[in-house]
Amino acid sequence: MRNPFTTPRLQTLLPAIRQFVEREILPLEAPFLNGPFSRVEPLLRERREAVKRLGWWAPHLPEAEGGLGLSLTEFAQVSEELGKTPIGHYVFNCQAPDIGNMELLHKFGTESQQRQFLHPLTEGRIRSCFSMTEPDLAGSNPVLLRTTAVRDGDGYVINGHKWFTTAADGAAFAIVMAVTNPDHPNPYARASMLIVPTATPGFRLVRNIPIMGEAGDGYNSHAEIRYEHCRVPAAYLLGPEGGGFKLAQERLGPGRIHHCMRWIGICERAFDMMCGRAASRQVAPGEYLGHRQTVQGWIAESRAGINAARLMVLHTAQGMERDGQEAVRDEVSTIKFFVANVLQTVVDRAIQVHGALGLTDDTVLSFWYRHERGARIYDGPDEVHKSVLARRILKGYGLDVR
Amino acid sequence: MRNPFTTPRLQTLLPAIRQFVEREILPLEAPFLNGPFSRVEPLLRERREAVKRLGWWAPHLPEAEGGLGLSLTEFAQVSEELGKTPIGHYVFNCQAPDIGNMELLHKFGTESQQRQFLHPLTEGRIRSCFSMTEPDLAGSNPVLLRTTAVRDGDGYVINGHKWFTTAADGAAFAIVMAVTNPDHPNPYARASMLIVPTATPGFRLVRNIPIMGEAGDGYNSHAEIRYEHCRVPAAYLLGPEGGGFKLAQERLGPGRIHHCMRWIGICERAFDMMCGRAASRQVAPGEYLGHRQTVQGWIAESRAGINAARLMVLHTAQGMERDGQEAVRDEVSTIKFFVANVLQTVVDRAIQVHGALGLTDDTVLSFWYRHERGARIYDGPDEVHKSVLARRILKGYGLDVR
Amino acid sequence: MRNPFTTPRLQTLLPAIRQFVEREILPLEAPFLNGPFSRVEPLLRERREAVKRLGWWAPHLPEAEGGLGLSLTEFAQVSEELGKTPIGHYVFNCQAPDIGNMELLHKFGTESQQRQFLHPLTEGRIRSCFSMTEPDLAGSNPVLLRTTAVRDGDGYVINGHKWFTTAADGAAFAIVMAVTNPDHPNPYARASMLIVPTATPGFRLVRNIPIMGEAGDGYNSHAEIRYEHCRVPAAYLLGPEGGGFKLAQERLGPGRIHHCMRWIGICERAFDMMCGRAASRQVAPGEYLGHRQTVQGWIAESRAGINAARLMVLHTAQGMERDGQEAVRDEVSTIKFFVANVLQTVVDRAIQVHGALGLTDDTVLSFWYRHERGARIYDGPDEVHKSVLARRILKGYGLDVR
Amino acid sequence: MRNPFTTPRLQTLLPAIRQFVEREILPLEAPFLNGPFSRVEPLLRERREAVKRLGWWAPHLPEAEGGLGLSLTEFAQVSEELGKTPIGHYVFNCQAPDIGNMELLHKFGTESQQRQFLHPLTEGRIRSCFSMTEPDLAGSNPVLLRTTAVRDGDGYVINGHKWFTTAADGAAFAIVMAVTNPDHPNPYARASMLIVPTATPGFRLVRNIPIMGEAGDGYNSHAEIRYEHCRVPAAYLLGPEGGGFKLAQERLGPGRIHHCMRWIGICERAFDMMCGRAASRQVAPGEYLGHRQTVQGWIAESRAGINAARLMVLHTAQGMERDGQEAVRDEVSTIKFFVANVLQTVVDRAIQVHGALGLTDDTVLSFWYRHERGARIYDGPDEVHKSVLARRILKGYGLDVR
Repeated sequence: MRNPFTTPRLQTLLPAIRQFVEREILPLEAPFLNGPFSRVEPLLRERREAVKRLGWWAPHLPEAEGGLGLSLTEFAQVSEELGKTPIGHYVFNCQAPDIGNMELLHKFGTESQQRQFLHPLTEGRIRSCFSMTEPDLAGSNPVLLRTTAVRDGDGYVINGHKWFTTAADGAAFAIVMAVTNPDHPNPYARASMLIVPTATPGFRLVRNIPIMGEAGDGYNSHAEIRYEHCRVPAAYLLGPEGGGFKLAQERLGPGRIHHCMRWIGICERAFDMMCGRAASRQVAPGEYLGHRQTVQGWIAESRAGINAARLMVLHTAQGMERDGQEAVRDEVSTIKFFVANVLQTVVDRAIQVHGALGLTDDTVLSFWYRHERGARIYDGPDEVHKSVLARRILKGYGLDVR
Repeated sequence: MRNPFTTPRLQTLLPAIRQFVEREILPLEAPFLNGPFSRVEPLLRERREAVKRLGWWAPHLPEAEGGLGLSLTEFAQVSEELGKTPIGHYVFNCQAPDIGNMELLHKFGTESQQRQFLHPLTEGRIRSCFSMTEPDLAGSNPVLLRTTAVRDGDGYVINGHKWFTTAADGAAFAIVMAVTNPDHPNPYARASMLIVPTATPGFRLVRNIPIMGEAGDGYNSHAEIRYEHCRVPAAYLLGPEGGGFKLAQERLGPGRIHHCMRWIGICERAFDMMCGRAASRQVAPGEYLGHRQTVQGWIAESRAGINAARLMVLHTAQGMERDGQEAVRDEVSTIKFFVANVLQTVVDRAIQVHGALGLTDDTVLSFWYRHERGARIYDGPDEVHKSVLARRILKGYGLDVR
Repeated sequence: MRNPFTTPRLQTLLPAIRQFVEREILPLEAPFLNGPFSRVEPLLRERREAVKRLGWWAPHLPEAEGGLGLSLTEFAQVSEELGKTPIGHYVFNCQAPDIGNMELLHKFGTESQQRQFLHPLTEGRIRSCFSMTEPDLAGSNPVLLRTTAVRDGDGYVINGHKWFTTAADGAAFAIVMAVTNPDHPNPYARASMLIVPTATPGFRLVRNIPIMGEAGDGYNSHAEIRYEHCRVPAAYLLGPEGGGFKLAQERLGPGRIHHCMRWIGICERAFDMMCGRAASRQVAPGEYLGHRQTVQGWIAESRAGINAARLMVLHTAQGMERDGQEAVRDEVSTIKFFVANVLQTVVDRAIQVHGALGLTDDTVLSFWYRHERGARIYDGPDEVHKSVLARRILKGYGLDVR
Repeated sequence: MRNPFTTPRLQTLLPAIRQFVEREILPLEAPFLNGPFSRVEPLLRERREAVKRLGWWAPHLPEAEGGLGLSLTEFAQVSEELGKTPIGHYVFNCQAPDIGNMELLHKFGTESQQRQFLHPLTEGRIRSCFSMTEPDLAGSNPVLLRTTAVRDGDGYVINGHKWFTTAADGAAFAIVMAVTNPDHPNPYARASMLIVPTATPGFRLVRNIPIMGEAGDGYNSHAEIRYEHCRVPAAYLLGPEGGGFKLAQERLGPGRIHHCMRWIGICERAFDMMCGRAASRQVAPGEYLGHRQTVQGWIAESRAGINAARLMVLHTAQGMERDGQEAVRDEVSTIKFFVANVLQTVVDRAIQVHGALGLTDDTVLSFWYRHERGARIYDGPDEVHKSVLARRILKGYGLDVR
């Protein structure tokens, strides 16, 4: 069936990118899966140069910013292709958390902030991280945020404890969420975002947290960080004071589209691997896994789930472009939990069809099994998104929503 | 979020129809649920006249045939509105099985067949039925079809045993599937469709089958029928001899769109009832069912499932219109099992939220719980659709699909 | 594998009862399913006499009370056999709600109450009902009970609105739950149980509620009842004033064992039908439903679920006998929701394996599909039982459980 | 509720072992999770000595063999306690695969084999491995086994490719499954077991397979092995020639009990962690995760699942002891897939309740999430066990089971 979300340029761009991913990036997957990131980094750097030469660099950014100038809905579809391998987005310089930071700096950065932080980032000369999650902070309940940034002369002094700061190892700067206005009556107006170069004294990267058996390194890591009397110039405040949650919301909307489309890329790759295995794995003479009705059921249900997921996400992207984030906030909540669950189910089935092989690091499945378990947790666990959505719906039925 | 499938005329038509359903048809639901169909039939007849006057009659038919001339995708959206009550389609004269029979006669009927059978049907003066399913026929395996129609002079003599012939009670004619060419090498070319007036000698309606506690009557029934040396003129052959399965496929494609959109209408009504109940049912002073996280989870998951279902069905409808049935056969298989499962889940949750009330016939939920259990069975059980879809996919991976 | 819960007498009793059910009761199932209860009642009466002659009457009652004197764990296993058909318990005079009322009257009735109400009941000369559920009463939240019984001279005057009073149609008396002490500080000490002969003025059976398509009649019905200044002698108070909830708890414990074992009987019958169908339904030449891996998966998962259910229930029964209800209250909550879900799943799968036939009333499956949907609702919905259990567990972790 | 499977000695033994696990073994879990096995091995050695001193060493072995002499059902309950941490069984010298090898050598080894291999193993001086799984061998289909052992003079020459040979790294010997009689008409009589000291030329440990992000080392590893003209004396044949599958079956029966009870230990620990977290994690002032109904539902359903699992496994163990493996083969199939699924569900929920923390290696949950994903695959995937069970059941209904 024809793709209703395609555009003229996508019709040539997508197949070309798909082929590039297959030929140029997939061969680097095995070294990525089986070694430190630092070892595969030089090879990735080459591919990044190739992407620049091909004119596909930073596909999400406007051309004026050195990007490809895709619309959100177009980029979403590119993102699916890149998501088929864990290193795809990195090669195109549209990887989280940098992509979100680019968007923030692009929209809210001062000219000087853009010159100092945004431009090197878009050019791929540095990396960055986003430091919001705290070990003792449940979900995104703002009243529980503990990291503080106290105005002191022409600067802010930051103190606090963060973790799951993705890719902090080797990053040039962090964007940090901290309470600047603890007494503001509106709890959502108490926090601000600040740019903190990682070389700043008091920025202490405690460790790359061992997650699902791997501490990782470089871009492929998630850090625990302590901010200890960490002082930055007031000019490093990003956006208005107290505007932290507003900015975070701005960042999250497209961010969820990006995540969801990346997950769909993962689903398609896992689906492809599942079908390939089902069609080639003999279970008895002349009989293959794919002849078993249970496996057929998994394939069909996975196909249905992925199709449903993609339609929902692309419709949401389209709506967001046309009518703004606020207009589609219900849809954004919906895709977050819906797609995360399709993802987990499809990867789990693909592993089951691969049997023992699916447990090894000889395929990419076990990487996703481990590292995308977080999809149901980060940016708000399923349960929170469902409650938020349901409460908004029930408000329409007159229920006082607490 | 805006509806990407809307059209200018739908923008006024849908709200008008929605209002008509609410004001004019819903009040007849309770008598429909609690009495024989014959008692509510006169009231429905009045509403049918009103629909004619409003110009909404037979919305699926071309204007030249006395219909509203909607496209498939437009009609699908009307179908959702009508599906919100079990009697909606009937009032608009686009109810199964008549709608499918109209399509068959419209496409494949001779002029004489159209005059004799189609026109009274489109005008709502008669009803019809479709007699394909056999008690001993598993799924739609054509080699197992046992009813025969033997050419004898200028007629066919039909013998066989059918059941689940919906709405046969009171129908003026049946379209019967029977084996006419038992020796054809292609098993899919052995059967034909024949028009059989129910007054024909040898057409024996054995009983309205008691289904889920109700035998029903009139339009609201499913008959067991024996064809005993039942002779019809050769001119009542519908389409070419041996073309039965081809016609059945033609009928099924849009038929599944119709079913799926009707199911989505059911889902939306059940969802609405669930939310209404959750918002108003007190479980403790100041605390309502809707405050419970489990109920919130059901509401959110139902919303996600229904949204996904609608997007998939409408995209499939659009693709079918543009590129034909063959182009979307995978999508048609997919929506069949996907939507049937969303339907069952949403209705089950709505009942659970209603508690004991949900078990009673004081709401429409129990009707759907009972009579839509068949959605996962009729027109091919879930498992068959999944296998069919998976086999087509696996063919692309080189698996010999048996 | 040997049954670890058997006893010497069960080893002969169970096979004999199983055979009696198959030969004497199953043949009455079709008339029961397809007609009013009143028509099958005379035939059931004969079977009841046969059971008396065989010495199996009222197997749950002590021999001194005219019963068979089985222990709870023994009776549970008999109950499974009787549960294989919807009319099994009735034939043995151990059907709900009478069995619970017998237990209440046996334990808490005065000599006079026993003479007047218990003895005719155990002898099977009359039937009774239990009138607790109210249309506006959520779950079993006692503070919401609205029916009142006001002391007035030597009697009580009852006013209130009940529904789901099972088998009230034709019953000789009801045991009614009503608030007698509205001002008692402990909300669980405000209600009492009263015996109300149905001939009492002010006892108004409004209707047999149409449930899942059937209003039913006689024993096979669930009534809506209004108590309108309904006056009974003070001597009809059952147990102490304010003791209603205590008695209800006493009734519920073994009652849940009974329900659960009856459900397991249903599961075994549905399982047997599913296997029989899978082994005999041809889907292609030489290929049967039972060759399909999906069907095999259903059979295996059903077997696992039923086995698990039975072990849990019988262990709970044994524990209840040995250590009392309080000692096993967690287990009682657990089996209530666990077994109800196994039941629903097994019946649903059995229907799916039967295809269209499973929807008809030609098998008993559709009866259970409809009338056991309530298993997840009555005596407390799944969600309430789960919360109750979890809160008790979390108390052990120091959580203040509200 | 009292434990119906307890015995007098268990009543003192179990609490003592539980306390030992908590005080002496749990503190070693963090180093085990975060470093190579070789680093924690010396600490574990100390604990092993302590266990010997306490008289608990090799609890599954007869006293005459230096064990504790527990029955299978007793050992199963000890196994649950040890399973609460990944290193429990190792400390008691009853870890897989050594426990299975001990059983094989004890039952089938010659005196000389026992002296050379069994005694050092039971004394904990050496470790061993079991080399059966092959990369291209689907499930346990014997006709697909490719490794061969050809008789050559007074020895066997083994050639083949194995993987998932657990704990081969550092093992003193392997028990290898190889085809010795390729032409035997019965495919189940073609293979034999041979003892292969790992120092034998031609035994090539290719690598410790990276599994779920870790290659591991020593006892905590799974090797890929090539047998290249690997020659062992004929006296190293274990059991009769062609008896390989028979021995494998002997090994698997109790082996599945052991696995299942270890899994239940994991479940109990994960459950305990989930409840602890739910009771202590604040989500809003005065509100804890455990107050959320969704979390309560997970706790209740987990409790139900674990209880059901334990009852089924212990009953199966009891039946196996009393009536032999053959008598309980259906039950063994059942517990294999049932408990593996409870395990996966409970661990997944525990992670979800822990949020981001659950993804880290700061708790043991992520270790189990990764390394017990295999529970649904090894020793036969779920689907195979379900089909095997269903086919045996359907045989009783007259279906020809292929």
